[in-house]
Amino acid sequence: MSDWLPSLITETPAEGYDLAVKLARVAVKMTQPEAEIRERLRAEYAEDAERLIEASQVVATHFATVAAANNYWR
Amino acid sequence: MSDWLPSLITETPAEGYDLAVKLARVAVKMTQPEAEIRERLRAEYAEDAERLIEASQVVATHFATVAAANNYWR
Amino acid sequence: MSDWLPSLITETPAEGYDLAVKLARVAVKMTQPEAEIRERLRAEYAEDAERLIEASQVVATHFATVAAANNYWR
Amino acid sequence: MSDWLPSLITETPAEGYDLAVKLARVAVKMTQPEAEIRERLRAEYAEDAERLIEASQVVATHFATVAAANNYWR
Amino acid sequence: MSDWLPSLITETPAEGYDLAVKLARVAVKMTQPEAEIRERLRAEYAEDAERLIEASQVVATHFATVAAANNYWR
Amino acid sequence: MSDWLPSLITETPAEGYDLAVKLARVAVKMTQPEAEIRERLRAEYAEDAERLIEASQVVATHFATVAAANNYWR
Repeated sequence: MSDWLPSLITETPAEGYDLAVKLARVAVKMTQPEAEIRERLRAEYAEDAERLIEASQVVATHFATVAAANNYWR
Repeated sequence: MSDWLPSLITETPAEGYDLAVKLARVAVKMTQPEAEIRERLRAEYAEDAERLIEASQVVATHFATVAAANNYWR
Repeated sequence: MSDWLPSLITETPAEGYDLAVKLARVAVKMTQPEAEIRERLRAEYAEDAERLIEASQVVATHFATVAAANNYWR
Repeated sequence: MSDWLPSLITETPAEGYDLAVKLARVAVKMTQPEAEIRERLRAEYAEDAERLIEASQVVATHFATVAAANNYWR
Repeated sequence: MSDWLPSLITETPAEGYDLAVKLARVAVKMTQPEAEIRERLRAEYAEDAERLIEASQVVATHFATVAAANNYWR
Repeated sequence: MSDWLPSLITETPAEGYDLAVKLARVAVKMTQPEAEIRERLRAEYAEDAERLIEASQVVATHFATVAAANNYWR
């Protein structure tokens, strides 16, 4: 998995947000490498408010990092 | 969804807070794209103190980012 | 709700803390706009250690932002 | 409660940590003002690992703020 | 365990992410030193969406630190 | 407990990590001063993935503070 994160710099805030979502998912992938199991878990938690909010929290933490890296796209 | 986040800069702190709420919701939307299911979940957790507090935590994390981006509207 | 947050600047740390509490509550208000339901939920979680600690966490996150905005009232 | 937080500046890191603990507790006090109920809840969660760890998380968040305010007592 | 963390500096963002994962796991190791028990727990939570998201949150917090240490690999 | 935290400065990142673990544990000690009860709780949560991950989160938050204090040992 050496090429998956060449840089934290993105052209726009929206691309930075997409990168934050990716950063959140990679940690899950590293603990649960089987795509099939991850798909099943995602189908379950996509209808579970608690999981959705927790996942949004992880994205928020990574977005803070990506935004700082990009000097907030000012 | 390429145009949803043109900038982190807002004119006022209140608009920055609204943006933080939006940033929190978009991550949920990306995992659960069906609006109908999200509406049902929101109706449920709007009466659940634990979910409301957790959602407020996500907003707080994004607000920190937006506030820094705007140099705290000083 | 356009005038509720004119500035993050406060005269004292204690006022900054009050502002952090307000910032934590507004997100709840946006998801659950009915005051009566919020009052009922607050009465419940005021006797629930887990909820009280989680709410304190949200305040802590906002206080970090407000303190930075005020350059820590140094 | 206007005089409880005159400053974030402390002489030592240990005093800064004590202040972080205080900052964590005040939010609980604001939601649950009755000391008797807080005492009962504290007695309960003092034997509950989950609550103890969550409370430690709130202290950690406030300690980050206090440490930054004091320029890390360097 | 004195040599496990010689530096927070990494050559690439992906290596920084790997370091964040390592930082998240070491705290678990310090509380639960027996590898066999950790393996059993990991096998369990690898199929538990809540645990996977929480673990991803810890990685996100460490990644913020590692990214700042590396000046975001700009 | 006045001498337990003379400084946030450490010689190496690994020592900084140890300090973060200590900072996480002191808050627990302040709420639950009896060592015997803490030992019992630790024995329980050392086999509980959820608690181990939550404790790792507290360490991560403190490590961010200690790393910043040490200018990331650059």
